Amino acid sequence: MVHHFEPTRYYTNMGTHEPVLRVKDGDTVVTSTVDARGKDRTDTPVTPPGNPQTGPFHVDGAEPGDTLAVHLDMLTPNRRFGWTRPLVAPNVLDPDYVRETAGEIDSRDDLCRWEVDPDHRTVTLVEPDDTRLGRLALPMAPMTGCFGVAPDKGQAISTATSASHGGNMDYRGFVEGVTAYFPVFASGALFHIGDGHAVQGDGEIVGTGVEISFDVQFTFRVLKGKRSAWPRGENAEYLFTAGNARPLDQCVQHATTEMLRWLQADYGLDPRAAHTLLGQCVEYDMGNVFDPAYTMVCKIRKDLLRGLGIDTRSVHDELAGT
Amino acid sequence: MVHHFEPTRYYTNMGTHEPVLRVKDGDTVVTSTVDARGKDRTDTPVTPPGNPQTGPFHVDGAEPGDTLAVHLDMLTPNRRFGWTRPLVAPNVLDPDYVRETAGEIDSRDDLCRWEVDPDHRTVTLVEPDDTRLGRLALPMAPMTGCFGVAPDKGQAISTATSASHGGNMDYRGFVEGVTAYFPVFASGALFHIGDGHAVQGDGEIVGTGVEISFDVQFTFRVLKGKRSAWPRGENAEYLFTAGNARPLDQCVQHATTEMLRWLQADYGLDPRAAHTLLGQCVEYDMGNVFDPAYTMVCKIRKDLLRGLGIDTRSVHDELAGT
Amino acid sequence: MVHHFEPTRYYTNMGTHEPVLRVKDGDTVVTSTVDARGKDRTDTPVTPPGNPQTGPFHVDGAEPGDTLAVHLDMLTPNRRFGWTRPLVAPNVLDPDYVRETAGEIDSRDDLCRWEVDPDHRTVTLVEPDDTRLGRLALPMAPMTGCFGVAPDKGQAISTATSASHGGNMDYRGFVEGVTAYFPVFASGALFHIGDGHAVQGDGEIVGTGVEISFDVQFTFRVLKGKRSAWPRGENAEYLFTAGNARPLDQCVQHATTEMLRWLQADYGLDPRAAHTLLGQCVEYDMGNVFDPAYTMVCKIRKDLLRGLGIDTRSVHDELAGT
Amino acid sequence: MVHHFEPTRYYTNMGTHEPVLRVKDGDTVVTSTVDARGKDRTDTPVTPPGNPQTGPFHVDGAEPGDTLAVHLDMLTPNRRFGWTRPLVAPNVLDPDYVRETAGEIDSRDDLCRWEVDPDHRTVTLVEPDDTRLGRLALPMAPMTGCFGVAPDKGQAISTATSASHGGNMDYRGFVEGVTAYFPVFASGALFHIGDGHAVQGDGEIVGTGVEISFDVQFTFRVLKGKRSAWPRGENAEYLFTAGNARPLDQCVQHATTEMLRWLQADYGLDPRAAHTLLGQCVEYDMGNVFDPAYTMVCKIRKDLLRGLGIDTRSVHDELAGT
Repeated sequence: MVHHFEPTRYYTNMGTHEPVLRVKDGDTVVTSTVDARGKDRTDTPVTPPGNPQTGPFHVDGAEPGDTLAVHLDMLTPNRRFGWTRPLVAPNVLDPDYVRETAGEIDSRDDLCRWEVDPDHRTVTLVEPDDTRLGRLALPMAPMTGCFGVAPDKGQAISTATSASHGGNMDYRGFVEGVTAYFPVFASGALFHIGDGHAVQGDGEIVGTGVEISFDVQFTFRVLKGKRSAWPRGENAEYLFTAGNARPLDQCVQHATTEMLRWLQADYGLDPRAAHTLLGQCVEYDMGNVFDPAYTMVCKIRKDLLRGLGIDTRSVHDELAGT
Repeated sequence: MVHHFEPTRYYTNMGTHEPVLRVKDGDTVVTSTVDARGKDRTDTPVTPPGNPQTGPFHVDGAEPGDTLAVHLDMLTPNRRFGWTRPLVAPNVLDPDYVRETAGEIDSRDDLCRWEVDPDHRTVTLVEPDDTRLGRLALPMAPMTGCFGVAPDKGQAISTATSASHGGNMDYRGFVEGVTAYFPVFASGALFHIGDGHAVQGDGEIVGTGVEISFDVQFTFRVLKGKRSAWPRGENAEYLFTAGNARPLDQCVQHATTEMLRWLQADYGLDPRAAHTLLGQCVEYDMGNVFDPAYTMVCKIRKDLLRGLGIDTRSVHDELAGT
Repeated sequence: MVHHFEPTRYYTNMGTHEPVLRVKDGDTVVTSTVDARGKDRTDTPVTPPGNPQTGPFHVDGAEPGDTLAVHLDMLTPNRRFGWTRPLVAPNVLDPDYVRETAGEIDSRDDLCRWEVDPDHRTVTLVEPDDTRLGRLALPMAPMTGCFGVAPDKGQAISTATSASHGGNMDYRGFVEGVTAYFPVFASGALFHIGDGHAVQGDGEIVGTGVEISFDVQFTFRVLKGKRSAWPRGENAEYLFTAGNARPLDQCVQHATTEMLRWLQADYGLDPRAAHTLLGQCVEYDMGNVFDPAYTMVCKIRKDLLRGLGIDTRSVHDELAGT
Repeated sequence: MVHHFEPTRYYTNMGTHEPVLRVKDGDTVVTSTVDARGKDRTDTPVTPPGNPQTGPFHVDGAEPGDTLAVHLDMLTPNRRFGWTRPLVAPNVLDPDYVRETAGEIDSRDDLCRWEVDPDHRTVTLVEPDDTRLGRLALPMAPMTGCFGVAPDKGQAISTATSASHGGNMDYRGFVEGVTAYFPVFASGALFHIGDGHAVQGDGEIVGTGVEISFDVQFTFRVLKGKRSAWPRGENAEYLFTAGNARPLDQCVQHATTEMLRWLQADYGLDPRAAHTLLGQCVEYDMGNVFDPAYTMVCKIRKDLLRGLGIDTRSVHDELAGT
């Protein structure tokens, strides 16, 4: 079943809030998200800033100990401009450099404005236009910066950060066509989504991508009894796991451990096979290094598993229609 | 001038050792490296283990404050097998998982043996062959795990680790065709190279790639008066900088700061342009997360700069013959 | 006014829960806390485990932007035994050592039992009694491991961890006679307290102190318009600030920054004076290194300030009756 | 035998340099050290800056695998003034605070000058005298910031940093009367010492203590066959171990692991006893958080061991004459 949902309220933390909609396993939701400052498709501020989330959506049958699969059917900017912060965050730079250059660089934190053209799939810097970048034009690459489920222990965790329930991971790989998997900690899973970026560099090192409101569509599947500990994802080429923490070293630990568990539990690898395969074939992507918790993503190519005669077809293939 | 050099001694630290050869700016060296355990192309142990380095090569005219460009003309395994460690290092895994699984996984630290076929460019697991991987075959992707120059302050730094002089970065991007740039700290730069891998996953998380001896060729250029603080690199598509430290967060700081400096000093970007460009376009690769110092690489596409009308031709293009 | 409060429900996260009691600025509460596993003075499990908190207490007049002072009038174990975990947590040990010794050490995670004698102020190991420690007897040093206020942004944060609102800091310095200061993020501040330890080593490196139920008494004062960003504390000798995060480096940053702000805002030090004073006189204590967020405490002796002619009398002196 | 040694050359890295003096097991050396900038007792610059070291001293019979005991018989400032840096290092502060305050605080990095009176054991700020500190007077507490032995693998490591061989730990606990223990990595151990501080805050957070030249006396003992992995120390009250790395979390891991090993190897504790004892009784001190490698110190009171009937007398007691 497809639900067309028009949000009227938003949350800036993910928790066990009253669901805005109850859907069934297999259902699809078509809705929209506001930008990180709470402005909608018409640039109207409809809610306070701070990565406001559309949702939570209660998925019937999802219970603690299950995993919720969410296929990102569609992620599309629904207005013609977005904005970015102009300066690389000081936590991403050498501390001495921050102190030395604080006077040299323009300390204005004026936002930059970007024109977004979904038809031609371009994102063009329009303000300021007096830097050496002029009107830099980039290919549009829409992604969701912040999404996830209600966290464990009845917590409500700010959408400024992330943890095992997902949240503000700001990972460029969460794009249309991906299936994300979240551990279910609360009855109904309570899925939230927001913080769309028309494009973003690795790490979200200026603290933003090109922040913009989105039209979104996603489809749920409850994986009963499937245990997971951290967000996972799948696309046509890769399985991946996301670790959210600080320092990045701990993100690597979480993501790598989760991948070892996944390969053994679902793909039949013995421990030595899993360790050796990762040793020579693993890839890592860096999610955000701006938020309180950072993000690292651990990836393995599915064709490597298929080359071992392992059937990699999964709920992702069903949801992706592949 | 091309020098054919046959190494007879090796160092397991990078320092201001007596040069094995003195070459001129523009010269090329054709030589070989032993594997991480000190074994040569015939599997003969010719020097103690620990990433033994061929060199150091003294490049005339390179003085502290300059930058040494080294084009990796050729990196080729010169024997038919390599080896890996079998287990993901415990520092890459959740501490609780390490304690819980220490008994479950086979704690043997027997090396795995891989057959390397440079003609067909394949790397095939042959021992053990009783894991679920069977005889896993991977495409060959030769890289140097450890290379660099004499460090600052007259130090001699173990080839187990890395710092601003390069060293054991174990970054998959240091492949044939790349130009690496190192800050010069000692007269003659004193270039060292070793630790070839036929293939390696990101992070070198089992503590090795497929370790093997190499035939190598490289060409030097001294960039007089060009200041740099960390290893840099360039290939057809990217400029990149490497930060070596712990935690990974500090690697990100070093590499990002170095990239900001480079874009401003050599490519004419004003600070705001450099910050904004990185914000939406930067990419990061993870080098090693095994060695005492970890490595992160900060990258920017050169076509983005060319799109701004910036001439990106450099010594790399000369050396690469492009 | 003194309130005698008998708790009937407990929370394992700190959030904007319905207050269990509303008190006024200056009021005192006499109540009790259960141990980390939810057992009370009679060893009866009265609530699920996980550092259950007594409270929250709503302090009239405390509003976001204020600081809540809480004087710990009394912290006393109210039963005759406590328990500890037996093994140093793996995150506190070298990863290689964890893997190497996982088989050697007894992997049982049986709790140790300690006899607590509040009259003689001793804490004595009684189970197991077959280690080289025999019946090790330690001086009792009661402290609260976990206390604080409702966090910012409407969050509800697990009592397994800590942040700017306080929480599970497991710092040995939060003892009877201390005044703790918390930034107020929610109307009424919403103070929680629990997780008493009869004694504890620095760092809480086995994941527990001697866990026990407490009788507690504390007195509130609202400091209107006094801004703070992190938990602070004061005793007869010291001012101190607590930073909660990972890695410990970031805890040091938070705590030191907070101390610089405090010395300048409340004690009239110019920036240079504050920096120079800390440079030669600062002290740091390590709070927990077990929980998701670690804790470091930055301290400065008050007699140093008095030596400069600065009046250090504060609400602490009033509450401490000194 | 007592050697009176007048240094004429200094090293700014610790390595396998030609010894300046060869001494025997049990010998005592009386000598002097210059300050961190290479100035001697008369304020004459006699060597370049960078924590220049007196030594190395070759101790006959010390071989790799042994431990070198060095009793600090005497550490005394030998001139009347020292200097400090004025600003807390940016790596010790919140990155946002560094950027925000870079303009507010006086960015001059002028050194502060302190008058040192060894007779009255006071250290008094004399320049600048226009801050709120006026002429702040502190008790003298002399310590060595940087000392150690030649590192492993033939390395030469800058005296700006530290590792398993010791080095620039800047720990306030290395005072007169302490016995320090270093793992021996090179024949003769090759002991270096320098970087005296008349006083210093924890962490050396401004990058200096009160830097000054010293008269020093120390006595060596070779502990044949005694394995150690990190610097250790002993005073009348405590055994302690130092871990040097980044982040601080890793320092904690090194120091705690080393203490567990020490308690089991030398004091007969079974693993459970060692873990449980540390759990409730361990103390940590923070060494430097300024240098490339940070330092944490793990401590245990010797009277706790004596309370178990363990004989804690050691070479320290002989050297200390207690």
